[in-house]
Amino acid sequence: MASIKEHFAKYWIYYLFILIEMTCIILYSQFVEFRTFSNSGGDWTEMMAQESVVAGWPILADMNVLIFIGFGFLLTVSKGYGWSAVAINFVLAAMTLQWSTLWNSFWNRVFVGGWGDPIFLDFNILFYSEYVTWSAIIAFGAVYGRLSFAQYLVMTFIFIFFSALSWNITLASFVANDVAGGMNVHAFGALFGLAVSAVAGRKEAKRTTTYISNLFGILGTIFIWIYFPAFNAGFFGNANFRGIVNTYIAMTASVFMTFLFTPLIKDGKLTIQNVLNATLAGGIIVGSTADIIVQPWVGFFLGCLAGVVSVLGFEYIVPFVNNKLKIQDSNGVLALHGVNGILAGIISAVIAGTATGARYPDDFSSNFPAIAAGRTPGVQGGYQLATLAVVIAISIVTGVLTGLLLNLSIFAKVTTPFDDEELWALGDENYAEFKKTDGEPQVVEIKIGEPINSI
Amino acid sequence: MASIKEHFAKYWIYYLFILIEMTCIILYSQFVEFRTFSNSGGDWTEMMAQESVVAGWPILADMNVLIFIGFGFLLTVSKGYGWSAVAINFVLAAMTLQWSTLWNSFWNRVFVGGWGDPIFLDFNILFYSEYVTWSAIIAFGAVYGRLSFAQYLVMTFIFIFFSALSWNITLASFVANDVAGGMNVHAFGALFGLAVSAVAGRKEAKRTTTYISNLFGILGTIFIWIYFPAFNAGFFGNANFRGIVNTYIAMTASVFMTFLFTPLIKDGKLTIQNVLNATLAGGIIVGSTADIIVQPWVGFFLGCLAGVVSVLGFEYIVPFVNNKLKIQDSNGVLALHGVNGILAGIISAVIAGTATGARYPDDFSSNFPAIAAGRTPGVQGGYQLATLAVVIAISIVTGVLTGLLLNLSIFAKVTTPFDDEELWALGDENYAEFKKTDGEPQVVEIKIGEPINSI
Amino acid sequence: MASIKEHFAKYWIYYLFILIEMTCIILYSQFVEFRTFSNSGGDWTEMMAQESVVAGWPILADMNVLIFIGFGFLLTVSKGYGWSAVAINFVLAAMTLQWSTLWNSFWNRVFVGGWGDPIFLDFNILFYSEYVTWSAIIAFGAVYGRLSFAQYLVMTFIFIFFSALSWNITLASFVANDVAGGMNVHAFGALFGLAVSAVAGRKEAKRTTTYISNLFGILGTIFIWIYFPAFNAGFFGNANFRGIVNTYIAMTASVFMTFLFTPLIKDGKLTIQNVLNATLAGGIIVGSTADIIVQPWVGFFLGCLAGVVSVLGFEYIVPFVNNKLKIQDSNGVLALHGVNGILAGIISAVIAGTATGARYPDDFSSNFPAIAAGRTPGVQGGYQLATLAVVIAISIVTGVLTGLLLNLSIFAKVTTPFDDEELWALGDENYAEFKKTDGEPQVVEIKIGEPINSI
Repeated sequence: MASIKEHFAKYWIYYLFILIEMTCIILYSQFVEFRTFSNSGGDWTEMMAQESVVAGWPILADMNVLIFIGFGFLLTVSKGYGWSAVAINFVLAAMTLQWSTLWNSFWNRVFVGGWGDPIFLDFNILFYSEYVTWSAIIAFGAVYGRLSFAQYLVMTFIFIFFSALSWNITLASFVANDVAGGMNVHAFGALFGLAVSAVAGRKEAKRTTTYISNLFGILGTIFIWIYFPAFNAGFFGNANFRGIVNTYIAMTASVFMTFLFTPLIKDGKLTIQNVLNATLAGGIIVGSTADIIVQPWVGFFLGCLAGVVSVLGFEYIVPFVNNKLKIQDSNGVLALHGVNGILAGIISAVIAGTATGARYPDDFSSNFPAIAAGRTPGVQGGYQLATLAVVIAISIVTGVLTGLLLNLSIFAKVTTPFDDEELWALGDENYAEFKKTDGEPQVVEIKIGEPINSI
Repeated sequence: MASIKEHFAKYWIYYLFILIEMTCIILYSQFVEFRTFSNSGGDWTEMMAQESVVAGWPILADMNVLIFIGFGFLLTVSKGYGWSAVAINFVLAAMTLQWSTLWNSFWNRVFVGGWGDPIFLDFNILFYSEYVTWSAIIAFGAVYGRLSFAQYLVMTFIFIFFSALSWNITLASFVANDVAGGMNVHAFGALFGLAVSAVAGRKEAKRTTTYISNLFGILGTIFIWIYFPAFNAGFFGNANFRGIVNTYIAMTASVFMTFLFTPLIKDGKLTIQNVLNATLAGGIIVGSTADIIVQPWVGFFLGCLAGVVSVLGFEYIVPFVNNKLKIQDSNGVLALHGVNGILAGIISAVIAGTATGARYPDDFSSNFPAIAAGRTPGVQGGYQLATLAVVIAISIVTGVLTGLLLNLSIFAKVTTPFDDEELWALGDENYAEFKKTDGEPQVVEIKIGEPINSI
Repeated sequence: MASIKEHFAKYWIYYLFILIEMTCIILYSQFVEFRTFSNSGGDWTEMMAQESVVAGWPILADMNVLIFIGFGFLLTVSKGYGWSAVAINFVLAAMTLQWSTLWNSFWNRVFVGGWGDPIFLDFNILFYSEYVTWSAIIAFGAVYGRLSFAQYLVMTFIFIFFSALSWNITLASFVANDVAGGMNVHAFGALFGLAVSAVAGRKEAKRTTTYISNLFGILGTIFIWIYFPAFNAGFFGNANFRGIVNTYIAMTASVFMTFLFTPLIKDGKLTIQNVLNATLAGGIIVGSTADIIVQPWVGFFLGCLAGVVSVLGFEYIVPFVNNKLKIQDSNGVLALHGVNGILAGIISAVIAGTATGARYPDDFSSNFPAIAAGRTPGVQGGYQLATLAVVIAISIVTGVLTGLLLNLSIFAKVTTPFDDEELWALGDENYAEFKKTDGEPQVVEIKIGEPINSI
């Protein structure tokens, strides 16, 4: 019996999360339904179900490519930690998709009521789960390689609860504009992750990369780049159209400025870090306002700005945070998601704070329901800044608390940072030999006939 | 002239299949048309053509990513056989897409008539071709690396004919539920492939993998994972919506359980084989019923079950089949597609066998046309089991016969299993040197000054 | 102050293109708008905006995967130049998407008027920008690895202007059929690139590849293959449906013939070059007529033809051009895009030249507006050949002139062809060591106890 006791002592965390999964199934059985003609009182027809699939599925799939392929392979740049990066990203995202549906609905009922209503699984709620999911793995990106698998599971489980709270305070209660989470996804994820990193992340870890691992990273980056407009799209009408096209233009602009501005500060050369990251900045900086920017040149300009800001961020902010504040940021999420997410919030305050009926002749009330209901634009701008403040406060406070929890001795810690062997049973893959070299053998050039001393 | 004779003696198989392709074109010219307003008697408008593209193309493209990228790169894990794996997958799938349209239509006319009607190329028939195609390459997965290119062509050409037969016996004649081929795609493909493997596959072959080849494999797996809901979707209304969402939830569940259950039986570690395969089990287990599961928790639970079953399958079934039955399974398709495909059939018998009008208030007759026409639910459940029996019988019998055919001396055999050099003219790629090492050089650590004997 | 002067002397090109980007933003602010209900005089409703997103976004995203992932990773086969290939492809495509919207609109107003109208950013204009973009990077493919980053920027900037001119002469003025640019995309891009290569490309450069780089290349090829039907689709009704399905069938056919015909001329083996390239030929050969081919077998047959032609092209044309004409073609774009693009034009002349009302009972006038307005089919066929002539003439003449410009001493030249170190600041990626070996270590097999002389 001692061995069973030992088994549970070592692996209790897996049993706990299997129990959590069973709990999730029970909660789904009690509260989650498909919308049908009957249970909607005749409001939901077969035709509408079909149309929702035609409109919704391609967007949902795009978001999943962004998250599972895009972000997953962006993180595989890490030498000797590629399997772990993409695989842990896989399971954390899967868990988040399951739970965020529940917590989003829970907090929504706290703020706007409707406790008796079932949770209908439709594309809108699935999209919100994707938003929380990207946010959760951005936090993972800040600290990846430096916590144990058990710690990632706990961290993400807590994250979902508070991220859904933040979304609902700001959208349901404040009626703020944050269409695709410039603040709630990017700033929240980056700051929560950095807070955890500061408190619980292994310090001395250094991530290195290889030539081929960076090719996988570029693959990930380009998939994020391509599907970012789908992620930023709103849900109906002109706003949706604008959400897609503004993001698209902003993305082309941040690519262009990354490639043109980097050589100016790096002796005429590109850096792989900027190409992997700063190219994506355009989608983030318009992440709160892609639907309410009504002139294409504005998204274009903001994308350029974001590219330059991110290049400077990787040059100056990352080293500062790392060396002066002593907070490690595994994937540099602060310079990309943090800084541009905060900018997204400030820009949303400017745009909402100056909104006029003339600027939105056709869809003012759908874009700014609170202003249409009596709030002044200036007050709406204030709510945008309040949203930013709430996002920053909740993410940092709950991130610090989560980090303190993860430091408890009950949770396994990582022994060697950025090392796949922490988590993987390696078979015929010759990982151990590979790890030493990872495609970059320390080639020994031996000239025939020369004594070995001359090597 | 001798040399021309030699040429034909060596390469007759390629001329044969070029002839087969020309035959296919001639058959298309006689029987296959585009549906138009005129030839449909005014039933098919420009608007409907356009709507079918908007609804159908994204799903078709998703299926192609699943098959050509997803399954193709899942198979590239094989060390030194990556080019062959993804490339042979490419050509076998292309051939299957062409021929399955013809054979599906042929068997459909055998069972339900309509011999005078042209074959209209619409998205429905293109989708069915995709179903047969995935099935065909699952069979390839069972035996890949251990047959010659000529043998794969022949095997797949035969496969298409019998797969289309199985689909039409079970769907057209039995009116069974098997929306996305839980039985007809996954069980059929795996069992046919294993039967061929038992009879004709090289025995002593051992597939090995490398660190980087597994990264390509994960890329493939995740693309299959993302687009599996599109593959499992039915064709209209709530059933389509449910098909997508049930699969989606089941997929998240099998990922979660794979990552949580594997460490419990592997000393706290993950295995790459489980992450590459068991994560996909959720989509297979609901492959016959994704459209008729009306409560989301059911798909969720089945996904969990499938994850656990697959992990156990790779731990116990694969070694048993390999070591005791002496049937090699190149990619472990039995533990994934075979087992979960059979479970999908059993589950379909339970769900159809207990179907009530109360459970499907809005769409009973479209989901269960035979029951609506007078069959009892119990009998429908029986037909589901009969479908499973038909799938198992046809796949194994025709697989064995195909294997016997492939053993004929007229077909080239593979000389070295799992070796790209069998098929590729290698140029400047330094394949020969690479093959020895494939990114994992046997690094020679030489200390300066030490005699060579001490290495 | 000398150092600032030096800085500008070295990096003026980056400042110039940042200035160009700012100019682009200003032009967008003056001429580019979102279409709304108000500014369209009530013609454009919220519902139409939403429907355009549902129909348009998936196609736009598919085109971007084709261009950024597909073509980008097809070019990464180049050993030691993978980062540059995919990254330069990234920035050139981003720039082209921005500028082609402007130049397409400019030339459109030159040929058909409407100078006072704003440029509405809708999916049609975004699609045309994608067409110009693929064309631009095909030109890059002809000369990649052999010019400097500065030269690529200049070359592409000029390219956009003349490509948009060619599109508008042929479509707006000639009213020719070239639905997805069989001529304007593929022939134009290949010939422009070759002309630049002949005049300005480094001559002695030799591209080599590696085992793993070719796996990335196959990934790119298959993504191009999957999304080519979306690229070739027209914009409405049966023509759109035919555009997709004809391309799809042609693609399967060129894959099949590539795999069956290559072994016949290569001693029973496949070559990676053919698998990477000739498999795509089907989409190109129907690139001018995918929408007006009304019998599926025609697309099927043309795809077979294109596969064979491309295999022969890589066997005979590439070496001829390279060794006899002394024009290097970095990625063999002539044998793929050039030859099949020219064939596409000839085929379009045959199909348009024989068009009858009986063949297009439902949509004659939308497919052939000029014939419907009085032109004879024979004359339309002549315009198709005139289109081909215009494409060839403009691409070669402007390509040569661009090459002469790029030879000016003001532009930085490449020092080492096909070398990432030209452009990248390399950090911890151990690139220098990697470059020597790139996953293919020159393995030193040392037998213990043997003298070093025997190695």
